[in-house]
Amino acid sequence: MEIQFLGTGAGIPAKHRNVSGIALNLVAEINEVWLFDVGEGSQQQILRTNIRPRKIKKIFLTHLHGDHLFGLPGLLSSRSFQNGEDAPSDLDIYAPKGAKEFVETALRISQTKLNYKLRFHEIQVDEPVLKMKEFTVTALPLEHGITCYGFRIEETAHEGELQVEKLRALNVPSGPIYGKLKRGETVELEDGRVIDGKDFIGSAKAGRIVAIMGDTRKTKNAEILAKNADILIHEATHEAGQEKLARRHFHSTTSEAAEVALNAQAKKLLLTHLSARFMIRDHAKLVSQAKKIFPNSIVVKDFDIVEIPFEK
Amino acid sequence: MEIQFLGTGAGIPAKHRNVSGIALNLVAEINEVWLFDVGEGSQQQILRTNIRPRKIKKIFLTHLHGDHLFGLPGLLSSRSFQNGEDAPSDLDIYAPKGAKEFVETALRISQTKLNYKLRFHEIQVDEPVLKMKEFTVTALPLEHGITCYGFRIEETAHEGELQVEKLRALNVPSGPIYGKLKRGETVELEDGRVIDGKDFIGSAKAGRIVAIMGDTRKTKNAEILAKNADILIHEATHEAGQEKLARRHFHSTTSEAAEVALNAQAKKLLLTHLSARFMIRDHAKLVSQAKKIFPNSIVVKDFDIVEIPFEK
Repeated sequence: MEIQFLGTGAGIPAKHRNVSGIALNLVAEINEVWLFDVGEGSQQQILRTNIRPRKIKKIFLTHLHGDHLFGLPGLLSSRSFQNGEDAPSDLDIYAPKGAKEFVETALRISQTKLNYKLRFHEIQVDEPVLKMKEFTVTALPLEHGITCYGFRIEETAHEGELQVEKLRALNVPSGPIYGKLKRGETVELEDGRVIDGKDFIGSAKAGRIVAIMGDTRKTKNAEILAKNADILIHEATHEAGQEKLARRHFHSTTSEAAEVALNAQAKKLLLTHLSARFMIRDHAKLVSQAKKIFPNSIVVKDFDIVEIPFEK
Repeated sequence: MEIQFLGTGAGIPAKHRNVSGIALNLVAEINEVWLFDVGEGSQQQILRTNIRPRKIKKIFLTHLHGDHLFGLPGLLSSRSFQNGEDAPSDLDIYAPKGAKEFVETALRISQTKLNYKLRFHEIQVDEPVLKMKEFTVTALPLEHGITCYGFRIEETAHEGELQVEKLRALNVPSGPIYGKLKRGETVELEDGRVIDGKDFIGSAKAGRIVAIMGDTRKTKNAEILAKNADILIHEATHEAGQEKLARRHFHSTTSEAAEVALNAQAKKLLLTHLSARFMIRDHAKLVSQAKKIFPNSIVVKDFDIVEIPFEK
């Protein structure tokens, strides 16, 4: 489980920073990559990563401003060029109303026929956006002057695993008995020994939590989504001190993002969506603004990869 | 007058070659840049050139396949971020039917309000696409399985200029007389001398001609558009020997493009729209295929600039 940033800029692309795109790499977990926002040029950025387009099976859009949306038709089209072993699977898009019309118009006008099925899901907030065995995704509205969401991606807790090596060392014969032991039951062996499954189950691991915000003013819903998250990704279009400007433009500052992380008791804050006027040399200043409030803060660059380990 | 290639690839972007985009730089002539096709990422490519988005005043689309079209909404939106001295002028788009619907849908769904006026012109072939004092643009249909055009951009011949220095050396007093002389009239000076304007007008310069083809099979209309052109830009998606494949996919080979240049008596051939499977190291092979038929051939790369000088 790792996150790779495809674009970390705000509004317009810069030479050193493309418009928004985030890949959540779940290949190790479920053999899928999920994208969050697809600004123009996302497919070109992907060419410079290890991500394979056919592994992108779900795309989530926080909102429909162009710098988060306009790369979608090109990515969907190019993904359809792959054949044979690389042929793409179906793809699900979770987005605010309007994404479907935009994509369908783009594909129709360009006479593009996809070689895979596309399913659109309009984002709902009163039930999970997506619920599967391994992950649950929920959304809440943010404040951006256009319908805009933040997402909370929660991994299902990993049950403790049956300690097979330990059982084998005790010469417990394998078979249906192992299933019972795994369920924590007590079984009597043929040789009379009584084995309690609970003694042979490893400790459970809590699932990881990633919170990915769309563009927004500082807002309570971001805190709710990021509650105890391992990673909070929050925009920081402006720097500390520019709170009035940020509020007027429905954006946040580095300090405000840090306050959200603090209040949510998140473990790590990744700041992205930086104004094009900030150069790479400005990152130290920006991150120090955030660290004053929330020490475990990072300002990310295009192509940065952040791993999300299990809690120790 | 120069041409810069923003993207020289076919269908899908590659690391070394973006999808289609050509800039015709007319800043020296009329303070404008014209774009021919706007594949995804064109605005990011432009960031790596000296082209200023506000100078892009006309955009021509050969056809509406995604690799020629999907960069348009982003370019139009980002151009609107410029203010003050850099505020953009109105913009004219010459394109097949459908471009307007695509762009208007993209701007509406993304709630983008442009700070300049956009005018759409559906391409006609029975009259010039554009006629202005300095340039005339005409179009003819090509063969690409979708409505697709080639363009011929003809510069108006430069009239001979009045040789003011020569008149001054003869003490011919300036004033309305100069206007008459420039029109080739004969005037009598106050001192009795008779001056024939025709003796004081420099030689006229023929206007330059650039022919830019959209994707196409080898077709007669490309020859017509490229007749005596200084520059012919023709696609070469495939290499020599792949003519059947090219024909089936409505594309051309290097040899076919060279034949068009030869038959049209063009002066120089620029080959672009290369399949992503060709690497930069393959250019020598591709260009030698074309040169066998038309010696003044070049295979272009992204960002290549080709100047178009006046004929000596």
